[in-house]
Amino acid sequence: MTRPDVTRSLAGFAVEFGRAEIPDRARLAARRTVANAVSLAVGSSRSPACEVALHTLRELGYAGDVSLLGREERLGLTSAPLVTGIAVHVEDFDDTHLTTVIHPAAPVVPAALAAAEYVDASGADLVDAVTVGVEVCLRVGVGLGHGHFDRGWHVTGTAGHLGAAAAAGRLLGLDAEQMVVALGVACTEAAGLQEAFGTMTKSFHAGKAAADGVEAALLARHGFTGPVAPVEGRRGLVAVAGLDSDPDQIVAGLGERWEIEANAIKPYACGVVSHPVIDAAVALRGYCPEPDRIASVEIGVNPVVLDVMGTADPQDGLAAKFSVHHCFAVGLLDGRAGPAQFTTERARAGDVVTLRRKVRVRLDPAIRRDEAWARVVDVAGRAHERHVEHATGSIERPMTDEALRAKCVAVATPVLGDGTAAFVDAALGIDALPSVAALTRSSVPRAAPAPSATDNPADAVRPRRA
Amino acid sequence: MTRPDVTRSLAGFAVEFGRAEIPDRARLAARRTVANAVSLAVGSSRSPACEVALHTLRELGYAGDVSLLGREERLGLTSAPLVTGIAVHVEDFDDTHLTTVIHPAAPVVPAALAAAEYVDASGADLVDAVTVGVEVCLRVGVGLGHGHFDRGWHVTGTAGHLGAAAAAGRLLGLDAEQMVVALGVACTEAAGLQEAFGTMTKSFHAGKAAADGVEAALLARHGFTGPVAPVEGRRGLVAVAGLDSDPDQIVAGLGERWEIEANAIKPYACGVVSHPVIDAAVALRGYCPEPDRIASVEIGVNPVVLDVMGTADPQDGLAAKFSVHHCFAVGLLDGRAGPAQFTTERARAGDVVTLRRKVRVRLDPAIRRDEAWARVVDVAGRAHERHVEHATGSIERPMTDEALRAKCVAVATPVLGDGTAAFVDAALGIDALPSVAALTRSSVPRAAPAPSATDNPADAVRPRRA
Repeated sequence: MTRPDVTRSLAGFAVEFGRAEIPDRARLAARRTVANAVSLAVGSSRSPACEVALHTLRELGYAGDVSLLGREERLGLTSAPLVTGIAVHVEDFDDTHLTTVIHPAAPVVPAALAAAEYVDASGADLVDAVTVGVEVCLRVGVGLGHGHFDRGWHVTGTAGHLGAAAAAGRLLGLDAEQMVVALGVACTEAAGLQEAFGTMTKSFHAGKAAADGVEAALLARHGFTGPVAPVEGRRGLVAVAGLDSDPDQIVAGLGERWEIEANAIKPYACGVVSHPVIDAAVALRGYCPEPDRIASVEIGVNPVVLDVMGTADPQDGLAAKFSVHHCFAVGLLDGRAGPAQFTTERARAGDVVTLRRKVRVRLDPAIRRDEAWARVVDVAGRAHERHVEHATGSIERPMTDEALRAKCVAVATPVLGDGTAAFVDAALGIDALPSVAALTRSSVPRAAPAPSATDNPADAVRPRRA
Repeated sequence: MTRPDVTRSLAGFAVEFGRAEIPDRARLAARRTVANAVSLAVGSSRSPACEVALHTLRELGYAGDVSLLGREERLGLTSAPLVTGIAVHVEDFDDTHLTTVIHPAAPVVPAALAAAEYVDASGADLVDAVTVGVEVCLRVGVGLGHGHFDRGWHVTGTAGHLGAAAAAGRLLGLDAEQMVVALGVACTEAAGLQEAFGTMTKSFHAGKAAADGVEAALLARHGFTGPVAPVEGRRGLVAVAGLDSDPDQIVAGLGERWEIEANAIKPYACGVVSHPVIDAAVALRGYCPEPDRIASVEIGVNPVVLDVMGTADPQDGLAAKFSVHHCFAVGLLDGRAGPAQFTTERARAGDVVTLRRKVRVRLDPAIRRDEAWARVVDVAGRAHERHVEHATGSIERPMTDEALRAKCVAVATPVLGDGTAAFVDAALGIDALPSVAALTRSSVPRAAPAPSATDNPADAVRPRRA
């Protein structure tokens, strides 16, 4: 009974796997993941959740010289990725590994960016670190099992801790022994509850994983000690927090088969399992009667959809991201589901509320997570139906390069205006940058940015003084 | 089917329960808990784990004006309690609530101290905050169930997050709505694996819970949003991380029955379930032959002892704290089990190694956790036996006030020397201090302190530069 030395294998992979050994497809996936994430971070850099976090971290006494994307302020080596992780994830518009329902960019990219800036790494070094960091994150997620997600863990928060530690630790120059310690600290901090979905605390999971990952790497480099088998040990992460789990899967084919290739960029700014429903709603436009002539709507989805997207009557923008009813309504009414469809104003708009109240959800375990159908019946009793085999942005229908560029431009423009093209060029060309600092510099607007497409943060951020 | 509103009840209790309503016995327990914790923090202020953490936090860009106990340096509102939490817990000499195996002081007291100093609170306000914070921590631990511990969670890390948030949030002036958010953020960060036992990462759980608790409270005060039922919700802490758990228990009799009264101060610097074995070993001294004439040793204990104290041949001081074999050996050889018995030197000493290799452990579920027997057989075949009904420091045999003072003096003296008496007076008289700052000031040595009784940190702390 020889079992793989899971943590040690992951640690060796994270710090020693060479650039030349990484397949082009894996690196390409990492570059797309980075470009998408940094564009979202710029676009959400003034979101209420980021503003509150930034005010809090300053009061907590953080200082430093690490950049925030889209903002002039600087923070410390862990406080900067905390804010950036929130920014990447807060619109639920980032990326998804559908097998594990992990959004790997939000914890991994901010940790890697902070560490890269700290050691003045090249863009290619950053891409390497993100590639191995995301791979560690996704593989730990696979090893934790579907039961881990089903029980209610937010896997982006749990497995994200290890991915962030791996990426940051590689850039900070850890050796394999130190990386075991860093992964051990990350394991023992791994947390995040789905109960937080629809609130600022959801995106906080990603930011905290990023921050904790950098902290774990630095503790390890300074001589901290931790367990030798934190992932696979008798009371390690998989045994304690996993369900239907198998730690051996984590390292099966490591360096040969790449989970990062199955990381899909999101076309819509909400929970990924609603994406096929939005596709169906968009496809029904023009074939449907006017909204006020719709009598009823029925949608057929995988049962997981109501588990995580079951808020029938959301009252604010973040909650609307977890309402498949709202998703269908804006898909049909607006023909899209970007950040502008998930504002508090839109969540309470009369046309949306009226339509989503007509939506009935049919659960069917035979329907895949990236599949759905929708049937609209008009007041005359005529039915209009669409079936979506695979959602846009799924592995079978990935976002094209042009669509990715268009998305990056769309989310960054409200903040960067004229500077958007230069920034998006740097983001998509990250592999060729001699220094990551060139990217972060290009992310800061020269003039004051236009108001965010999302809710105005002014009311939320005013701190109450003691 | 009316179920209690668990999080909201805890939040209201944490911020609104008045001093006059707290029974004297609960406040007395809190004062003893504080005095013990701050003395340990001073005594371990130069431990290797604290030195590494302090170096790391500085590199991470933390700055601020919050005191560390026993040291002149200052840190930020979350970084200071991180170091202090490690210091309180690193010797495993702090306190234990035996029902839940939580060490509540290590996460709660440092969070409360930092917040108290920040708002310049009185000693009595600090004691109030520790009383409600420890109570929240222990009750959440009860609600998570024995299965939570048995599965491998370090409950000091998980439930500790909520206790720290409650104590800090009360001092920072949160209202009940904000406290719900603070507890929500704390729930979703709650973590800590028993796999880390015997390494620096174990005490890091306590420090991190303290730091995260303060951060959660401040995020809430600045307007962060979180789930409304993070403790008892369908995907909340108890549902996701609990086993044999019952969230209703958390608030049953809240404010009437006080778990903090069952928090016991530790007489020995190691895992609490080995304490009756140490009592038996100490009691056998003088009735036993010389160590080299001992043929064999048998000890009878509750099965939990080998689960957490099963390291038969520990190679360093922290690992020795999780070896019941080592605990018996030093108890018999040294007649005590303080920090000096758990150094790496003592873990590798010939007399200890020889004796502990003779120890055989018999598990018996009928033996309580605070009970044990030990039988020594000499080379002539004569048996010598002791049975301990309730360990020293258990609820049935609590540490007397004199013994507590003696312990505080013993652990603080190596750092404070002549200043020890003034510090211990302030610690034991905390309730009467107009400002908590008087306590922290008295904890800083005037001259350079003598070397710690524990391992010399010099080798561990030198950071490797990038």
